[in-house]
Amino acid sequence: MPMTREEVQKHQQVALNYLNKAGIVLTESEKAQIEVADFGLGEFDQTGLALIVYHNDEKYCAKELILTPHQTCPEHKHPPIPHLNYEGKQETFRCRWGIVYLYVEGATATNPHAQPPANRRHTYHVWHEIVLKPGEQYTIPPQTWHWFQSGAEGAVVSEFSTRSVDEADLFTDPEIRRIPDIVE
Amino acid sequence: MPMTREEVQKHQQVALNYLNKAGIVLTESEKAQIEVADFGLGEFDQTGLALIVYHNDEKYCAKELILTPHQTCPEHKHPPIPHLNYEGKQETFRCRWGIVYLYVEGATATNPHAQPPANRRHTYHVWHEIVLKPGEQYTIPPQTWHWFQSGAEGAVVSEFSTRSVDEADLFTDPEIRRIPDIVE
Repeated sequence: MPMTREEVQKHQQVALNYLNKAGIVLTESEKAQIEVADFGLGEFDQTGLALIVYHNDEKYCAKELILTPHQTCPEHKHPPIPHLNYEGKQETFRCRWGIVYLYVEGATATNPHAQPPANRRHTYHVWHEIVLKPGEQYTIPPQTWHWFQSGAEGAVVSEFSTRSVDEADLFTDPEIRRIPDIVE
Repeated sequence: MPMTREEVQKHQQVALNYLNKAGIVLTESEKAQIEVADFGLGEFDQTGLALIVYHNDEKYCAKELILTPHQTCPEHKHPPIPHLNYEGKQETFRCRWGIVYLYVEGATATNPHAQPPANRRHTYHVWHEIVLKPGEQYTIPPQTWHWFQSGAEGAVVSEFSTRSVDEADLFTDPEIRRIPDIVE
């Protein structure tokens, strides 16, 4: 069930409130361009995030990611794109506000801080935990499975990366569609 | 006359105060790594800036730039680097706090907001003005001459770019040395 325009605007306003808390200013034009991504699941409060793309071309990309409390960006990776001669996106997550629990390939955390949404738990496979507090950052190599969840306050995360080609992303959850529909 | 360690630390603390105003958090380790660049002129309050590099590799670079009131980053460009097969740095400046007046190649501003330090005025040649307030940004193509100055409050600017190779930068002021010495 796609989101209505009204629902998108509500979530954009919530995202703006978090950006305000983080001291991050958007132009009026950018405010209307905040992307509300629910990955086609219709469970935005559990699985989703809001984002604003500052710049994205073949050279580099910069965004802010905004998560409400315990919201999860589901497990995915950025594959090579042969026709672009692109090995896949490398990205650096820098926590600006709140806490984010990031999970990547590697040694499994024995007692992870985050748990995925219960009804989607079976689609999560990587459990190497990185905890990012404000000012802390981590760089994810291309083609690495990863997912992340905010802490109890939510989180604002800057992403610096090579180019973004969201429609190429691979998700472990077969029900996910990255590019959402909006009902007018 | 190179800066003393004590002077560097004083300017690092001033830069931290501006980052605080902008709501930007650094780790303790990063705080000690803030670069204080006076371009070898020994006139830091007039010509210089502080910066912290978050990430810089062959794929992309992300930094914060901090300028005190009316401080100027002098005219320069980022040339091609043939042995790296690199066409030169492209960079996006995004104003986070304060105001920055950016000058690039193009139609000369009839009444520019900024004036370079008077004793260096003869080394400034590009006068196409872009005014960046918080949330506003501008992308500078490779090999474009540019300089910038903060407004009366100072400024904090995020820079997203291709890789930085500072030692390759070309300056119009022949007295400038980009990589400073520090006296212990």
